[in-house]
Amino acid sequence: MTVSVNYPEEFKGFAITDPKDWASPKLTSIQPKIFGPNDVDIEIEACGICASELFTLKNEWSHDELACLSSTYGPKCQIVGHEVVGKVVKIGSECKTDVKLGQRVGLGAQASCCAKEDCSRCNSGNEQYCPQSVGTYASRYPDGYVSQGGYASHVRAHEQLVFPIPDGIESHLVAPLQCGGLTVYSPIKRGIQDILDAGKEQPKVGIIGLGGLGHMAVMISKALGAEVTTFSRSNAKKDDAFKMGTDKFIATGEDKDWESKNWDQFHLILNCASGTSAVDLDKLLKTLKVNRSFINVGLPHVDEKFEISPFTFFKNGSTIGSSCLGSRAEAIELFELAAKHNIKPWVETIKIGEEGVHEGLTRLDQGDVKYRFTLVGFNEYFGTGK
Amino acid sequence: MTVSVNYPEEFKGFAITDPKDWASPKLTSIQPKIFGPNDVDIEIEACGICASELFTLKNEWSHDELACLSSTYGPKCQIVGHEVVGKVVKIGSECKTDVKLGQRVGLGAQASCCAKEDCSRCNSGNEQYCPQSVGTYASRYPDGYVSQGGYASHVRAHEQLVFPIPDGIESHLVAPLQCGGLTVYSPIKRGIQDILDAGKEQPKVGIIGLGGLGHMAVMISKALGAEVTTFSRSNAKKDDAFKMGTDKFIATGEDKDWESKNWDQFHLILNCASGTSAVDLDKLLKTLKVNRSFINVGLPHVDEKFEISPFTFFKNGSTIGSSCLGSRAEAIELFELAAKHNIKPWVETIKIGEEGVHEGLTRLDQGDVKYRFTLVGFNEYFGTGK
Repeated sequence: MTVSVNYPEEFKGFAITDPKDWASPKLTSIQPKIFGPNDVDIEIEACGICASELFTLKNEWSHDELACLSSTYGPKCQIVGHEVVGKVVKIGSECKTDVKLGQRVGLGAQASCCAKEDCSRCNSGNEQYCPQSVGTYASRYPDGYVSQGGYASHVRAHEQLVFPIPDGIESHLVAPLQCGGLTVYSPIKRGIQDILDAGKEQPKVGIIGLGGLGHMAVMISKALGAEVTTFSRSNAKKDDAFKMGTDKFIATGEDKDWESKNWDQFHLILNCASGTSAVDLDKLLKTLKVNRSFINVGLPHVDEKFEISPFTFFKNGSTIGSSCLGSRAEAIELFELAAKHNIKPWVETIKIGEEGVHEGLTRLDQGDVKYRFTLVGFNEYFGTGK
Repeated sequence: MTVSVNYPEEFKGFAITDPKDWASPKLTSIQPKIFGPNDVDIEIEACGICASELFTLKNEWSHDELACLSSTYGPKCQIVGHEVVGKVVKIGSECKTDVKLGQRVGLGAQASCCAKEDCSRCNSGNEQYCPQSVGTYASRYPDGYVSQGGYASHVRAHEQLVFPIPDGIESHLVAPLQCGGLTVYSPIKRGIQDILDAGKEQPKVGIIGLGGLGHMAVMISKALGAEVTTFSRSNAKKDDAFKMGTDKFIATGEDKDWESKNWDQFHLILNCASGTSAVDLDKLLKTLKVNRSFINVGLPHVDEKFEISPFTFFKNGSTIGSSCLGSRAEAIELFELAAKHNIKPWVETIKIGEEGVHEGLTRLDQGDVKYRFTLVGFNEYFGTGK
């Protein structure tokens, strides 16, 4: 099937208008956001499927109705997708990055930031924490448009968040690095940089949950030089974990005394599981070295909370927190690291289309994925790429 | 009144056997712990009153009975006090620190650690997190003795935790630094050291709660070169805070929009309040800069918990944790800093005795203290110091 797109006046993509239809987005034409002087249009070639999509489409990260339903202009429907790889087809008049027409680029979960010199977040390599950050989908721009994602023919984003992709990594493999990969890279890098700089010991990283995020976290930690321990509930994914490069594997539901055996081990624990309830913080925090951190990257349902006794931290002065995405500089570092170390996420490709989107979303919802889906065939489907 | 002590066979102090009598410890003779080759005996001159005493005497940090009731040997009663200043009167045969007979020393909330070269905590300046750490009171030694504190004629402790005190600070003022001062110094130092080292900006520290711990935290943060903001519920202590050196003062119950006015301000927030319920983490964490920490030093009731949504951290990648006491090296640094910067905790002295102990504990329980009590007159009372 090939559909035709009247770009740049319209983009085409797969959208829902009601969370009950989360598994079945329908082909829809949408009006893009008004093109700004720092915007870039990407003609999409491939797009990863991230668990964020399920939370957004089911509207589980909010107590309000879908944001698009109250957009000031543009579509009253929602297209998701924020692991975009594609080709630059339009560049705003004031773009300062070296983005070029025809260049292969990526776009992750953030589509805009203020990028002002006096923004303490943007001017310090922390634009993911810019107070004017706009997510790639389901997020409101200052002008009232609600952002639309990458299960689509095209996507429009601020140049700061449009990342050059080096040669040597195939698009369907580099797609999951745009959101998932960057989301784990940033806290791993920030969490062990001091140990790497000191050069006295190999950093030890624990990764909880071998799913879409976790399996990339294992590979990225290894590439950064860490000793990696994978935590999983059972031994079911043990063989996979070792193939991905983990040094050690702990099945918390099957290994006896794993917490005492691993006392004082880790410089960083990264929680890649999306729920908080399965994580026994009292046990896990004991495995951290003094003053090190347990960082979450998966976001659970809006009502799920961590419950922690202040006593838990007193045994090692550890801390717990969350990390959100990564910066442009970190994205570029990550892609270079991936190219250099031949990091290849385990990706199953699915052809874009209503059927393919449905299959990807429902199988991800059932956990039937090893370990990431990338939607492909965009050019054929949308009649683009010419 | 003068009582006589048959030191070294017995120490005398003020003890309870039942938490219902928390406010009225009685004069008691106790058998000290068996003297080890690395132990030091201190003839006590002064001892601060710490809020830990209330929690311990009321048994609010535990669901079990008082630990002393099941000690293997020694007293079946509990003496508290862990801000000890006194004179060294006995030194173990294998002591390696330069502790000297007659020297003025301090002892904080920790009385022992393994001090072994192969202990990852003891060999890295983190002996406060040694798995064999023994608290100065109500804590079980490996031999089954339950430790007894400093509202007493003498106290016995491992040399590693017996700190030399420089001249130029009076004993009743340096006493509160042994536990309270060190407990805030360690996380402040560790929390802003990277900013001090970088030398590009003045570290900004927020201190929550202007009580015993908080007022020392303000003075210590200033001495370390930070800009200090004190958070309090009302403006009642505002004048005091400025006298102590705070640069800014926020009354969270009275100032409007304090959290948006202070967005992205702090490199460190230190929570010196002992409860968790009064602290609005969702608002406070917003005032942290990217990837900085909110650290607790006050320990609440054993059943109090922090409840945090993972979403809260996503705006700035902040973390939350707790810090426990400080190391010997940090204690020595702190006393030098105090001597150099003339740090003087606001101390009201109370004469030791059943009456004085009762007054100190009940007034502290009622919050009737500005801002710390030190029990004094030990030599006169116990007939020591000769």
